[in-house]
Amino acid sequence: MTHLIAIGGSDAGISAALRARELDPTVDVTVVVADRYPNYSICGIPYYFSGDVQPWQSLAHRTTAELEATGMRMRLDTWATDIDVAGQKLAVRGPDGTVEQLAYNELIVGAGALPSRAGIDGLDALGPDDGVHVIHSMGDTFALDAHLAERDPKTAIIVGAGYVGLEMAEAFTARGIRVTQLQRGPEVLSTLDPELGAIVHAELDQHGIEVVVNTTVKAIEKTQDGLIVRGVHEDAPLARLADLVLVVVGVRPNTELLERAGATLGAGGAVLVDEHMRTGLPHVYSAGDGTVTHHRLLGVTYLPLGTTAHKQGRVAGENALGGNAKFAGSVGTQVVKVFDVVAARTGLRHHEARTAGYSPWTVDASADDHKRYYPGSHPILFNITGDTRDGRLLGAQLIGTLGTEVAKRVDTYATALYAGLTVEQISELDLAYTPPLGSPWDAVQAATQAWSLSQRTAVRA
Amino acid sequence: MTHLIAIGGSDAGISAALRARELDPTVDVTVVVADRYPNYSICGIPYYFSGDVQPWQSLAHRTTAELEATGMRMRLDTWATDIDVAGQKLAVRGPDGTVEQLAYNELIVGAGALPSRAGIDGLDALGPDDGVHVIHSMGDTFALDAHLAERDPKTAIIVGAGYVGLEMAEAFTARGIRVTQLQRGPEVLSTLDPELGAIVHAELDQHGIEVVVNTTVKAIEKTQDGLIVRGVHEDAPLARLADLVLVVVGVRPNTELLERAGATLGAGGAVLVDEHMRTGLPHVYSAGDGTVTHHRLLGVTYLPLGTTAHKQGRVAGENALGGNAKFAGSVGTQVVKVFDVVAARTGLRHHEARTAGYSPWTVDASADDHKRYYPGSHPILFNITGDTRDGRLLGAQLIGTLGTEVAKRVDTYATALYAGLTVEQISELDLAYTPPLGSPWDAVQAATQAWSLSQRTAVRA
Repeated sequence: MTHLIAIGGSDAGISAALRARELDPTVDVTVVVADRYPNYSICGIPYYFSGDVQPWQSLAHRTTAELEATGMRMRLDTWATDIDVAGQKLAVRGPDGTVEQLAYNELIVGAGALPSRAGIDGLDALGPDDGVHVIHSMGDTFALDAHLAERDPKTAIIVGAGYVGLEMAEAFTARGIRVTQLQRGPEVLSTLDPELGAIVHAELDQHGIEVVVNTTVKAIEKTQDGLIVRGVHEDAPLARLADLVLVVVGVRPNTELLERAGATLGAGGAVLVDEHMRTGLPHVYSAGDGTVTHHRLLGVTYLPLGTTAHKQGRVAGENALGGNAKFAGSVGTQVVKVFDVVAARTGLRHHEARTAGYSPWTVDASADDHKRYYPGSHPILFNITGDTRDGRLLGAQLIGTLGTEVAKRVDTYATALYAGLTVEQISELDLAYTPPLGSPWDAVQAATQAWSLSQRTAVRA
Repeated sequence: MTHLIAIGGSDAGISAALRARELDPTVDVTVVVADRYPNYSICGIPYYFSGDVQPWQSLAHRTTAELEATGMRMRLDTWATDIDVAGQKLAVRGPDGTVEQLAYNELIVGAGALPSRAGIDGLDALGPDDGVHVIHSMGDTFALDAHLAERDPKTAIIVGAGYVGLEMAEAFTARGIRVTQLQRGPEVLSTLDPELGAIVHAELDQHGIEVVVNTTVKAIEKTQDGLIVRGVHEDAPLARLADLVLVVVGVRPNTELLERAGATLGAGGAVLVDEHMRTGLPHVYSAGDGTVTHHRLLGVTYLPLGTTAHKQGRVAGENALGGNAKFAGSVGTQVVKVFDVVAARTGLRHHEARTAGYSPWTVDASADDHKRYYPGSHPILFNITGDTRDGRLLGAQLIGTLGTEVAKRVDTYATALYAGLTVEQISELDLAYTPPLGSPWDAVQAATQAWSLSQRTAVRA
């Protein structure tokens, strides 16, 4: 009987274990989890702090008991310390400190990522007790929760204005904490073009969040008056004081275990795997945020996302049982809700496409989410990128009011990218229409038609 | 200079004219419109009656002035009476009765459809003055509007429970009119499987609409007490009295003009065209509800829908200028909102797929529209049909609460059908996720995974 070990209680490890048990209910599966919180929705943490989700236990996709009921064995509070590749053994340190050797036939490593430190002085020395937080695990969540409960901070500085930073700004605001958000780039949500990010920025403004862009944070200091964040804002020194600092400036892959075992690193310093999620080490797979990402438009890159971790884990779980599944590749689809705005993207932006060797043409467009005569219609703004050589769709960004179905409209583009459709073919799609929820040419088609017309005009001119 | 004539002021004719002007601003385009209301959203009429849309003028996609501003010439209140194919002339009768011969280089006929009479005795003799209505044009709209204003009916019988019938039931209910809805088949919304239609039925019940299924209407009689609708309900005679009767039992293609000109009829008695929308008569195209529908899974069929009319018109407009555009084919995507429920379908249902020679396997599934821990999540119910031989997706039906993005979730399946994806490939799609609006595996993927598992289990068993 095959004994499969999955390391990691988050998306990749659990997905691998679930897939293996689903495909072969006789396979022996052990999941090694560093804390007591397997299968928690890390993406949901901001909604715990906003008060939308209560209690924190409801963030679990599945409880430990539910996971065990699928037939997998859970080893909680257990650290994977070493892989003996040749001997097919995994050394683990259990909750009482005991080190044990677990034999495996197949090993799937979902070691995830770690919060980036971003070269900020003081960040290594200061921690939750000082009021300096990251938010990457349930442990971080409890630490921040305790801080909020015990010290009732009135002001917070959030370093970073990406997905989590924005969601946490909303959450803190909902709790009555005054937020200052410091962003390195020229606009918030730097994964979108700045003119779309500006709409998110305006939404933050409207909710009383002070956003300071073009700011590089250099240091955090603890003083009697509170925490001082120092940096450079447009060539001038900047210093801000707050009761609490949250640093959310992205992640770096956690590769230490596999690196020591001899795995090769690739894009972004993540563990290199093939599309079957094989590390090259015999019987060792890697999946999730510690692993490179195969991208349908970029080749091998590093783009850690929960959705991808699920898919990679599923592939690894199938292949560990002798399957031949391939990770079909990410197209970088992402969506975020910030107060009453929803912003999404898929594929490549103009400059990303150019860097990758495509010949991009990008057009912005606006189209109503549904027929204007029906109450409650709102414009959705689009940036559409296609290739001038073969007309292929390369990417789409869109932003609209909550309720305009932006999150699922982006999926049409994501599906088109998967299938390699041209921009013009989007007009051929038979999309759903009823006046309260769409238009005879859906907004996603109005946007691509604007691209086609603009292209045609440019060629004619 | 090319002179292009488009007949029809609805989706097909206007789309053709717009496309031609868009591609070549020098082309001379005349649109012949039987009434004074070109480019009105016929799909929006129920929302005028519900009070959501006011005034009726806002139902115009574009005003006549806006259409004329694109450079096309509008001939309103003008009937196309005869086509001289060899002479390339169209005879029209203008508002004052004068008959005129219009020369054309290319002719596009978008003659649309007519309300079906469904073999109901009395329907030809009774009309709006008697309180018996259809709802297919702005003229019908004004007649019904006048009736409601002048006679203030308290009760209505709606014959038919398809898209328009359901929307009108909601509209009448919103106005305080008591509605009885008579449906021939075993469940309302017969374009969906009955177990999904039953959810719409329950929504109608909850809003006080009396739904009587399995009822064939035979006759309508005018009496002193009101209108009596007679029929057969489960082998027993049925008679219902109401102040107003609305008959919405589908449409039949309006082919008279092209038939007399020598065009061939095809599926559903509609004008046969190739994928370029050519009728076979030189320089004569047909598009829209009077025309057959190329369907990507069924071949040539008859499935009149506004979205399709737009696409067919666009193809005809391009080809009339010497282009070589092809209508890529419908996949039958449809969506309807009924009170707080949204129901959608695309592709084929099980029995349709079997009839068409596929080897269908159909599975029902339920998945939340977004993570359950975030407030306001609701289950979406799915029926997924795929082919057991090659795993290809054949169709999807889904139903959920308003706000669950069902209308745009069906688009992912519609796009997959266009691209010929397998059910399993849906799991490979990189769809958008944020906890308030989705799940790491989106609901559409949870549903297809249920199909795959069920298939696997069936094969193993």
